[in-house]
Amino acid sequence: MLPDDPRNDLKPADCQLWLDAALRFANTCRAAINAKVSSGFDVEVKPDNSLVTSADRAAEKRFREAVKAKFPDAGIIGEEFGAESPDADLQWVIDPIDGTSEFAAGIPLYGSIIGLFYKGMPVVGVLDHPSLDLRIHAAHGLGTWLRGERVRLADLPPGLDKTVARLSMPSRVSFLKAGEDGAREDEGHIFERLSAEFPNCRTFHTCYAHVCAAAGQVDAAVEWDTRLWDVAAAQVLIEEAGGAYRLLRKRPLADGGDGYSVVFGKPSMVERIARVIEPLC
Amino acid sequence: MLPDDPRNDLKPADCQLWLDAALRFANTCRAAINAKVSSGFDVEVKPDNSLVTSADRAAEKRFREAVKAKFPDAGIIGEEFGAESPDADLQWVIDPIDGTSEFAAGIPLYGSIIGLFYKGMPVVGVLDHPSLDLRIHAAHGLGTWLRGERVRLADLPPGLDKTVARLSMPSRVSFLKAGEDGAREDEGHIFERLSAEFPNCRTFHTCYAHVCAAAGQVDAAVEWDTRLWDVAAAQVLIEEAGGAYRLLRKRPLADGGDGYSVVFGKPSMVERIARVIEPLC
Repeated sequence: MLPDDPRNDLKPADCQLWLDAALRFANTCRAAINAKVSSGFDVEVKPDNSLVTSADRAAEKRFREAVKAKFPDAGIIGEEFGAESPDADLQWVIDPIDGTSEFAAGIPLYGSIIGLFYKGMPVVGVLDHPSLDLRIHAAHGLGTWLRGERVRLADLPPGLDKTVARLSMPSRVSFLKAGEDGAREDEGHIFERLSAEFPNCRTFHTCYAHVCAAAGQVDAAVEWDTRLWDVAAAQVLIEEAGGAYRLLRKRPLADGGDGYSVVFGKPSMVERIARVIEPLC
Repeated sequence: MLPDDPRNDLKPADCQLWLDAALRFANTCRAAINAKVSSGFDVEVKPDNSLVTSADRAAEKRFREAVKAKFPDAGIIGEEFGAESPDADLQWVIDPIDGTSEFAAGIPLYGSIIGLFYKGMPVVGVLDHPSLDLRIHAAHGLGTWLRGERVRLADLPPGLDKTVARLSMPSRVSFLKAGEDGAREDEGHIFERLSAEFPNCRTFHTCYAHVCAAAGQVDAAVEWDTRLWDVAAAQVLIEEAGGAYRLLRKRPLADGGDGYSVVFGKPSMVERIARVIEPLC
């Protein structure tokens, strides 16, 4: 941690209190999602062609109510309802259902992403997967925890063959974007290069990939042009597990907001991937 | 079904009896796998660099014992212990753990594949996912069933945009093979072409992709140079759900046995994929 890192101000008790709250907020989201799974939910196509359901909206609403009750001065940034109090030191970030298309299709890898940032630095991260009954969490200085056990990432063995190293990749569709003039921008060559260099690849297309990276079940994960809420938990989960998190590119997207392209996982795998991809960014 | 299809000889009661047996065999495999998950298991690297665990072996052994007790004259073909009675009309085929690398890594998408063939034609298929508590099954003439509900695949809407149609792809590593002379044969261009034509792609790297295809959670799945046991359940699961199954290529692999490259799912998606890939085979 750098000397001017604002997290130097924090006490472990602050982080523990925030973590405990984040875990309760994750319970709130899970209950809202499971209620909609039981009762049935509506699916709509958003202007950017992604999906949203009444479960996404219900979970984010419940989350916002819970945050405001406990932290009335904190900011909130969410996928479905925008930003509140954007200048506050503490910012709660949520993607109520990451992988809405999988959720709507009945694939259980969707999950809720909850992150807390203090003066721009990540301090708490939770991924909760209701259908898998799976949760991973981390807080600054307090470690990363999966099913009650602390996670510590081992690095890759030196010289591990590239056909063995395990990469979680974005779907190729994540490399297609609407450009400034409405024309389609296609960075499929980056998808091809990544898969050629690391052919033992998986594509889950949800934050389940972040669980796998933080738990060492894949050696690294790449995300491309994702939003802040998509990676809100990843950095603290990875760094508290002893892994590396690298921002490859941040740029404004044509439909508003910034796109984050990142790689995270075991340190030497992150280094190998960054060497391949950074020259293409 | 063609007039000379040997399954024309069968009565529904035959298929029901075999299906009931297959479901019991799936219970046997699941119990063997879960016992090893509880007690711990050993992992070994096989000569082809794939993994095998003591759980794979235990599940296949229990399966073989159960088949022999109930169907002493039937043949058995399994990933771990080869073929027995290869000339019998009835052939039970098993991959005790498809996705052993995921199983060993703690990713819950691995599953058992059980198929029954009568005079070379598929009559029963079961996919069982112990960690997901998920099973899908089908029998000739009796439909495909997921969680107690019959599955009927709707076709794709005509003209569905290629960025929306959902494809399950093999990992790129599946397109790399040891050639006859030990040199590496690389069909990565087929992976690239598939992903370029159908960019909304997922890669699960286990038979969970077959559940998704049979249940319509993806629009089609492709497998490349897989073994008979890898696709032992897929054809009957797909066809009984009203989908299409197409063999793109069958060829002998350098390390022995045949490699099957197949596409299956919603009929018009299978047709679109075959048009792209067959010229490359």
